[in-house]
Amino acid sequence: MSADLVAAPALDAAVERRLRDALGDDAVVTSRDGRDEYRDPYWYENDRSFDSSAVVYPTSTEEVQAVVRIANDVGIPIWTSSQGRNYGYGGPSPRVKGSILVSLRRMNRVLEINEKLAYAVVEPGATWFDLYDAIEAGGHDLMVSVPDLGWGSVIGNSLDSGVTYLPLGMDYQAPTGMEIVLADGSLLRTGMGGLPDSKSWHVYKRGLGPVLDPLFIQSNFGIVTRMGYWLMRKPEAYAPLYLMAPKDSDLEQAIDITRELRLQGIIRGVPVMQNTITLSSHFPEILGKMRAHEGTLSDAVLQEIADSTGVGRWGQRTAVWGDRVVVERHVQRIKEAWGAIEGSRVDEYGVFTKENWGEITDFISKVQAGVPNLDMIEGRPDNIGHIGFSPVVPLEGEKVREVVNLLKRIAEDEVGVNFVAGLCTISERSTVLVSGLNFSTVDERSWQTAFDAVKKMVTEAAKLGYGEYRAHLDFMDEASDQYSFNDHAYRRFVEKLKDAVDPNGILSPGRHGIWPSAYRNR
Amino acid sequence: MSADLVAAPALDAAVERRLRDALGDDAVVTSRDGRDEYRDPYWYENDRSFDSSAVVYPTSTEEVQAVVRIANDVGIPIWTSSQGRNYGYGGPSPRVKGSILVSLRRMNRVLEINEKLAYAVVEPGATWFDLYDAIEAGGHDLMVSVPDLGWGSVIGNSLDSGVTYLPLGMDYQAPTGMEIVLADGSLLRTGMGGLPDSKSWHVYKRGLGPVLDPLFIQSNFGIVTRMGYWLMRKPEAYAPLYLMAPKDSDLEQAIDITRELRLQGIIRGVPVMQNTITLSSHFPEILGKMRAHEGTLSDAVLQEIADSTGVGRWGQRTAVWGDRVVVERHVQRIKEAWGAIEGSRVDEYGVFTKENWGEITDFISKVQAGVPNLDMIEGRPDNIGHIGFSPVVPLEGEKVREVVNLLKRIAEDEVGVNFVAGLCTISERSTVLVSGLNFSTVDERSWQTAFDAVKKMVTEAAKLGYGEYRAHLDFMDEASDQYSFNDHAYRRFVEKLKDAVDPNGILSPGRHGIWPSAYRNR
Repeated sequence: MSADLVAAPALDAAVERRLRDALGDDAVVTSRDGRDEYRDPYWYENDRSFDSSAVVYPTSTEEVQAVVRIANDVGIPIWTSSQGRNYGYGGPSPRVKGSILVSLRRMNRVLEINEKLAYAVVEPGATWFDLYDAIEAGGHDLMVSVPDLGWGSVIGNSLDSGVTYLPLGMDYQAPTGMEIVLADGSLLRTGMGGLPDSKSWHVYKRGLGPVLDPLFIQSNFGIVTRMGYWLMRKPEAYAPLYLMAPKDSDLEQAIDITRELRLQGIIRGVPVMQNTITLSSHFPEILGKMRAHEGTLSDAVLQEIADSTGVGRWGQRTAVWGDRVVVERHVQRIKEAWGAIEGSRVDEYGVFTKENWGEITDFISKVQAGVPNLDMIEGRPDNIGHIGFSPVVPLEGEKVREVVNLLKRIAEDEVGVNFVAGLCTISERSTVLVSGLNFSTVDERSWQTAFDAVKKMVTEAAKLGYGEYRAHLDFMDEASDQYSFNDHAYRRFVEKLKDAVDPNGILSPGRHGIWPSAYRNR
Repeated sequence: MSADLVAAPALDAAVERRLRDALGDDAVVTSRDGRDEYRDPYWYENDRSFDSSAVVYPTSTEEVQAVVRIANDVGIPIWTSSQGRNYGYGGPSPRVKGSILVSLRRMNRVLEINEKLAYAVVEPGATWFDLYDAIEAGGHDLMVSVPDLGWGSVIGNSLDSGVTYLPLGMDYQAPTGMEIVLADGSLLRTGMGGLPDSKSWHVYKRGLGPVLDPLFIQSNFGIVTRMGYWLMRKPEAYAPLYLMAPKDSDLEQAIDITRELRLQGIIRGVPVMQNTITLSSHFPEILGKMRAHEGTLSDAVLQEIADSTGVGRWGQRTAVWGDRVVVERHVQRIKEAWGAIEGSRVDEYGVFTKENWGEITDFISKVQAGVPNLDMIEGRPDNIGHIGFSPVVPLEGEKVREVVNLLKRIAEDEVGVNFVAGLCTISERSTVLVSGLNFSTVDERSWQTAFDAVKKMVTEAAKLGYGEYRAHLDFMDEASDQYSFNDHAYRRFVEKLKDAVDPNGILSPGRHGIWPSAYRNR
């Protein structure tokens, strides 16, 4: 089905030999089982468009350099994966079939935790669990801003613009200062890291001259082998909250209230507001009720579930961190503001301090305290995949409604499934509407229908002026196509950069729609 | 004196004709007086190393495109200046003598103020005064994060990594979404602006694919003709403060306290801590006392001035913005924390609300309320220039002390002047130590001595692992030289980008040490 299959030449024995010599035999895997570990687990089981030809496991920056030099020498594409947990976006699969998959899972060290300045330095294979464990093992008075699932890579998530939920998750403030293997195998250090023995590499976000860190987000200009990640001083008090809105029509007001609370500095993290269906991942009581129905749930049924479970038609998790008096006051302000929604409710999950920090056990409290977990996927049925479609929307009720209406219409009318929505409000001014569709990974028709519908979401949302913050591997090109101002000026500019820094086009060709010249001209 | 004089060919009559045809006669100025308006006013009066050959005044993006096309066609370097108020860093002077100076002062419109989403869109000639006036004229419930002096360009300051002091000044959070004229005269829009009729251009900091905005900071890859700038919702309460530390040896403790207050979220803006000498720009009583002495003031004299005026040896301005209860609590927390410094004092400048906002009149209160002004340079004597040297230092007392000691030794022992220091604490983890030297612009020896000493500061600080956040025109190359990791990997990478997007090397060659290939190979 894949719109545009691009394949690399088959891996030849001489190249495989060179890789084995460089990394050792145990670090080069060509068996189908071994390669399938890096298949998108949500991809239709019988489609092999995005298979790799081998998986290699460097254990150090020097070994990454060795792999890149071999690939550059012979002109074979490599595709880098830190942990590859970006399910819903294609996982670790390479865009070009037959690429060598460079797995960085064995480079999983937490290189440094600086308690005083509150940052860590990690390798790309280090997961949220690894980082959290290192912080706890060191007894540091620090917290890490984490995403919903703890198994992913800190670097991988950051480089995909993945969302995290503590205040440093706001606008991806945490990543700072990178070491990068370039296409010729040489090493680059960004920002203050350009100074030998720099004392400010991971504490300052710019440098002298153009700022490069953000150029390595969603790109294929180099392989990040080390990155600083800012941490948060553990607050005196922490109060997780759940803000319930009872009616679907409360959406606009809920968004506008959230914006004003953010602009006033009262909400500082990344709140997530979900609709009833989507809330089932945190509230098992919803799932039970849903199972009593077949097919698409009607508005009346959704309302019944929302009312009887008490979760509402929209529910927003958020939290307050800080001085005890301030936390109390900010909770009060949030309750006052949210109280303007008729029939709404604010649930308090308690106020946590150093004394009762260990009592943080529920998902909403854990994720906003930086405690990584896998709660959301516990008991998830097999063979169900999902694809994400996540446009960026200004934080205005009526604009959010416009996009919700569009996506809901496509999901319900064209696919016949309920619309799922999680609004990750990553700043005071915009929200990422994480939506998408579920499908069966063993049913070709279900899979095709879902992908067709999501591709339609991409183009229809773009017509209204909304673009995706992150695209699934299968439609990175279509998503990128929408950014067409001035005959795709953005893409043409980025392609010039790509050709300049990777003339042989070996690094993750096609990632987020960036193709090196050899592929563009094919 | 200039270490490395680079000159463009003389402007020929045919090119001048083309510029006049494109922009109109009044927009092309070649007279010496006209060109001297764009001379660095702090440069030695008899040195002409950085003169332009003409000044052109486009009034629209289309006219900027026309100028760039002509320059690209004939291969003449152009140097862009928004307002050119970056005194102390070379002002509007071009790096390459004989460049055509493109002044954007006539493109000074505030294109949009979005009250709901709290941002403005400006042209490069728009100053802090222009933006403030537009906000006030519209009656908007908004504030703009401003620098010390209000006459500069919002875009120019942002693209130089210039510091501003409200919470959005922290780590340069305000600039978002650019329109850029590229070297071939074509237009690029960054981030969500790549979507035609985008609704999120100025509300989201990334996009789909590599993030480009920061690439245009301190660079020469294009001319920014439009930029979004985030604004702050006016708070319920605002409390500016002055934190006094009585002894020079309090520095370490003061820095460490500041860091913890920042990490706890209590201080959210950009505080500035200055030593006694530097505080004279806000406290005229210090100036009077200083004038009673000749030459370098001894430590004993400085202590006497610090004590008798009550300003202390270190004084830090800061502020709290927010809900009334929270402001009161955070002021209390700051007083408690700062009180740990023996003999210290916290001065409160009042609590301002909508009712008494008009009573904000002193400099410290104005600058942190986003009221642009020129107070600091009132009554400044003629013929006194200064050069800035401003390394980035981790926000740790002992590291700040290490740099202070170095710079103080060079200033006092080698130049015989008192050390000036303003620590702009731009994030929770680092501070920009804005230092430098004053000199006479009509005395060649005074000028040379100052520049020699500052260049020594650049190299000596780098040996300790500290680099500059922004360099003076005259030693951009030396400052850039320090970022030498892996045989100048950073610079080599940036040069590749430069050659790819500006193959004829016409855009501001030499800016922050980035030279196009034609100049590198000369």
